[in-house]
Amino acid sequence: MIRFCTQCAAPAAMTIPPGDNLPRAVCSRCGHIHYENPRLVVGCVCAWENRILLCRRAIEPRLGRWTLPAGFMENGETTAAAAARETLEEACAVTIIDSPFAMINVAHINQVHLFYRGRLSRAEFAAGEESLEVGLVGEADIPWDDLAFASVRLCLQHYFEDRRRGAFGFHALDLPLL
Amino acid sequence: MIRFCTQCAAPAAMTIPPGDNLPRAVCSRCGHIHYENPRLVVGCVCAWENRILLCRRAIEPRLGRWTLPAGFMENGETTAAAAARETLEEACAVTIIDSPFAMINVAHINQVHLFYRGRLSRAEFAAGEESLEVGLVGEADIPWDDLAFASVRLCLQHYFEDRRRGAFGFHALDLPLL
Repeated sequence: MIRFCTQCAAPAAMTIPPGDNLPRAVCSRCGHIHYENPRLVVGCVCAWENRILLCRRAIEPRLGRWTLPAGFMENGETTAAAAARETLEEACAVTIIDSPFAMINVAHINQVHLFYRGRLSRAEFAAGEESLEVGLVGEADIPWDDLAFASVRLCLQHYFEDRRRGAFGFHALDLPLL
Repeated sequence: MIRFCTQCAAPAAMTIPPGDNLPRAVCSRCGHIHYENPRLVVGCVCAWENRILLCRRAIEPRLGRWTLPAGFMENGETTAAAAARETLEEACAVTIIDSPFAMINVAHINQVHLFYRGRLSRAEFAAGEESLEVGLVGEADIPWDDLAFASVRLCLQHYFEDRRRGAFGFHALDLPLL
């Protein structure tokens, strides 16, 4: 919610700018238009032999639940760099990033979640600042009822399905599932 | 550039918040942190028989140059919906969206460009407000030297390459090409 102009500090109000068709926060004094757009959350399904790296969240939302290393992409980086950085930050693990694996629209919260497939370069990992614990988990031991996010569940379901088929694809999906 | 706080109008300054590792625009009074993240530009390679839909830009940047229908993804929509909306807005064309085709990181301008493959549902199109003209163009007639953006060129190169091979993939690419 943008209440004041980032350029001149005057009050901003939601209005449709000329030539536009959606309401934007427009400055009442200087006319600056504040665009708000969806954010990319980028993560990684990071494998070591037949197990994958999961992190138990040390922060809200979903503190204590399990997730894939993932987080908001930063300005100036590529999507693959973001996936590698998040894996390093949350799981203290160095990853070889392979291919994009799943792109999941979460339109009701203005996010697009993008998961890569990757491999640990060695079996070394530890809990980063935002994780309570980090572990390598086989398919049989995935805590399906204790995952942090629907996108993580959906990504992992497709991952294991593809792995059983012997071929990884790229999956474009929307949440919630209708 | 965020000069003033969107929540309380006090001056904001670039500083690294506690627990973070990147400078953010932080409010000097209320402490509100303004995160800035890459934006998604979503578009479509929209085919009718063996030609594709190109638009000549009526707006800056690159006024007068040719491009694929594409634009900033909006809050509340999915990537596929954004691709269809942009094709409707810029080319007045109704599209059947098929699959994601190319994801191109343009990190130096904090953008990710995502192009879908699609098909016109009928051969009806016209210049939208942001286009000077719109046309169906065969591979031999693509104005390679007069395209608006490097990402559009890269996307089209891969599109025709895949079409010759007889199989469309999903391409994750970075610009500038190194």
